[in-house]
Amino acid sequence: MSDYDPSNIFGKILRGEIPSEKLLDTEDALVIMDVMPQSKGHCLVIPKAPSRNLLDAKDATLEKVMPLVARLARATKEAFAADGVTICQYNEAPAGQTVFHLHFHVIPRYEGVELVRHAGGMADPALLKEQADRIRQALA
Amino acid sequence: MSDYDPSNIFGKILRGEIPSEKLLDTEDALVIMDVMPQSKGHCLVIPKAPSRNLLDAKDATLEKVMPLVARLARATKEAFAADGVTICQYNEAPAGQTVFHLHFHVIPRYEGVELVRHAGGMADPALLKEQADRIRQALA
Repeated sequence: MSDYDPSNIFGKILRGEIPSEKLLDTEDALVIMDVMPQSKGHCLVIPKAPSRNLLDAKDATLEKVMPLVARLARATKEAFAADGVTICQYNEAPAGQTVFHLHFHVIPRYEGVELVRHAGGMADPALLKEQADRIRQALA
Repeated sequence: MSDYDPSNIFGKILRGEIPSEKLLDTEDALVIMDVMPQSKGHCLVIPKAPSRNLLDAKDATLEKVMPLVARLARATKEAFAADGVTICQYNEAPAGQTVFHLHFHVIPRYEGVELVRHAGGMADPALLKEQADRIRQALA
């Protein structure tokens, strides 16, 4: 149940085997745009240390990643003048997890705008790149 | 916007001005049952350091609280043989925040069982206490 399988899609992205729209690449984590965004600016913070989810993650991994999650919350809010930010983190499929490498969803929120459902559809890559540029600018 | 107002309900709970069903009380955080649970075993991890939400929280606060969030995820999953755990953290009202003191929702999930909506209704205190006893046992 808590076995880590490195063939998951985020494992492949971390190893550079498949492309992603990268926002930050630190020693401890990779931050990318979610290709199936629930709102404008939806991004993912992915610790590099291998764990399936929060249930088998090391404390040191969590200590390193959470300040980065907060940093992305602030940057996405600024980049899109969002009205709020929702953080979600799913553990196991019945809780909503679809990729079995620990990750945190950073989802900017806009007054009166409902979220697209989780993993609801692929975004236009050009639009994602444009949004990524705005977030990178806010991070700089 | 990021001003902290100590009169919020979690501020009052942290100061002992109103009661709560406590699961853990550490130097850095208080863990309590959510009185408006979205699922069986829904609890809240509340850092003691004052901040409105993630947007104005100090990194040190986040580093201390996340291992505790993971500990509660594991304990609630064990206590109720849950099939997964969803972690949610809301920043500002349009993102779902209803109490303006940083907190993390730890929500055990059960196959085929939809969540009650956020802040959907008060739980029976006797039932909450019974669930709290099971979580305390799993934490011990």
